[in-house]
Amino acid sequence: MKVLVIGAAGMIGRKLVERLAADKAVNGVAITSIHAFDMVEPDFSGLASDISIECSHGDISQAETAPELVRSKPDLIFHLAAIVSGEAEVEFDKGYAINMDGVRYLLEAVREAGHCPRLVFASSIAVYGAPFDERIADDFHLTPRTSYGTQKAIGELLLADYTRKGFVDGIGLRLPTIVVRPGKPNLAASGFFSNIIREPLAGERAVLPVSRDVKHWAASPRAAVGFCLHAASIDGEFVGPNRSLTMPGVRVTVGAMIDALEEVAGPETVALIDEVPDEAIISIVDNWPRSFEANRAVDLGFQVEKNFTEIIRVHQEDELS
Amino acid sequence: MKVLVIGAAGMIGRKLVERLAADKAVNGVAITSIHAFDMVEPDFSGLASDISIECSHGDISQAETAPELVRSKPDLIFHLAAIVSGEAEVEFDKGYAINMDGVRYLLEAVREAGHCPRLVFASSIAVYGAPFDERIADDFHLTPRTSYGTQKAIGELLLADYTRKGFVDGIGLRLPTIVVRPGKPNLAASGFFSNIIREPLAGERAVLPVSRDVKHWAASPRAAVGFCLHAASIDGEFVGPNRSLTMPGVRVTVGAMIDALEEVAGPETVALIDEVPDEAIISIVDNWPRSFEANRAVDLGFQVEKNFTEIIRVHQEDELS
Repeated sequence: MKVLVIGAAGMIGRKLVERLAADKAVNGVAITSIHAFDMVEPDFSGLASDISIECSHGDISQAETAPELVRSKPDLIFHLAAIVSGEAEVEFDKGYAINMDGVRYLLEAVREAGHCPRLVFASSIAVYGAPFDERIADDFHLTPRTSYGTQKAIGELLLADYTRKGFVDGIGLRLPTIVVRPGKPNLAASGFFSNIIREPLAGERAVLPVSRDVKHWAASPRAAVGFCLHAASIDGEFVGPNRSLTMPGVRVTVGAMIDALEEVAGPETVALIDEVPDEAIISIVDNWPRSFEANRAVDLGFQVEKNFTEIIRVHQEDELS
Repeated sequence: MKVLVIGAAGMIGRKLVERLAADKAVNGVAITSIHAFDMVEPDFSGLASDISIECSHGDISQAETAPELVRSKPDLIFHLAAIVSGEAEVEFDKGYAINMDGVRYLLEAVREAGHCPRLVFASSIAVYGAPFDERIADDFHLTPRTSYGTQKAIGELLLADYTRKGFVDGIGLRLPTIVVRPGKPNLAASGFFSNIIREPLAGERAVLPVSRDVKHWAASPRAAVGFCLHAASIDGEFVGPNRSLTMPGVRVTVGAMIDALEEVAGPETVALIDEVPDEAIISIVDNWPRSFEANRAVDLGFQVEKNFTEIIRVHQEDELS
């Protein structure tokens, strides 16, 4: 099986390629090659694997890129590349070029190739917009309130129609907030969800800009990779015509996250969190969806951590050992 | 006020231009000019009006068309042009080119023009897909099951995002089945809804290919024009961020339509209907949404006929007198 990972230099993409190289198979089918693609060239030179990993880079918003990527007819494609929410909101044209045109070019290239591969597409819970139900069911209407969410919703619609027509066998994954993100703190509005765990565990101070009763929907990077691999394996017949699925997550308040941190690392670690309310971030986070049902995905066998303590343990195992 | 009608040679577009020329104003603001545009050049030479009507034709799937259309900065734009459902299903590329790229080019041209006009966009109840609720509420999820419905749903998403960003002031209208369509019988799967009324009223035989208990959601051509004009007049603030609205309709079974025809025209007219079940049409119609709530549109003042008898009377007044 030939595998193509678009967005392989990103946090999830990198972990996915590492996992594919380690597993050497998806759903029992041996992987013969991995093509790791991104805007900047991914680097897997340090990876010990007997599977051939081709790395390349390019711009998916250019019409000629996707046909080049699928010319070798990869059996399995992961499309994880995107302009993130904040940037898509500021860079309107760039967001549509990468997040909408990029998906369409890929679908067209796959249609042209004619071999109907499984395509796993990273969508987002940003396809949902306020006002929300207390728990967002799988059939909640799509009312994005950002350009990013609009572009992801359009990607989902295209994925479903190209799948219905038999051009591709697509599965869209609406990913929860991924915590604990490794690396340095970043300026994303959602960054604090990871910062308040990762930095104290490393003995560094971290700022909590929202109140402890803020709820969210979380999954570990390892769970996100698991979602991708499970999506690569399931029978599309069971998914039905609605090809995009809200992924399961851990329903947790910031307060419960901090309690879990204390349980794992003690009160002196928690003491490194400074509560400094930031009205700008509070107002952004207020408009995010917080809690989902994700029954379809659970019924299809997608799995996530049981609680936030487990998410912290996964971070320790995967990043700190 | 300068008005642009894209799709002015179509059934609703033609009636809309006639109405605009007769009213000479929209929402109390005088119309100074009307630009009637379509794929084939509209002809309003027979129309007695002191308002200047410019007619032109072109292809909205070409990037250069929309900038030309909005160069004069029309204050009010009606976008009614589309490849219809059946054709969009067979002509995949053409459907996306006209129904998706055409909308995006128009939105981009309006953004470039920078004057944020009201844009009334004809969407469709085809944005909804089975399985349906008994009555489809305004927040029912969008799950189109056709390329046409997918393209209209994408148009709605773009309209909302461009409106949110302040590039346009858009209102999308999900139109019911329009009956009684004037003209000759056509091959559209929905054609019989009009045929079984129009043809008998003209003393001609008509075929009913489905059973009398089939339900649907109907409005007259006059009501459709009224929807467009009302959408041109309402305050966008009251519409909120979900810019597309399911239009009110008359909830009616085919049997009740025939009863209304008998009430208006007598049993000898109804006797001209031949019930000849057509499995192909039955299976298509089985997958159509049948009944809506349309509460948002009703609250915003959109109006439709009270019952099917009134729809027949409108047909008689507008087409047969």
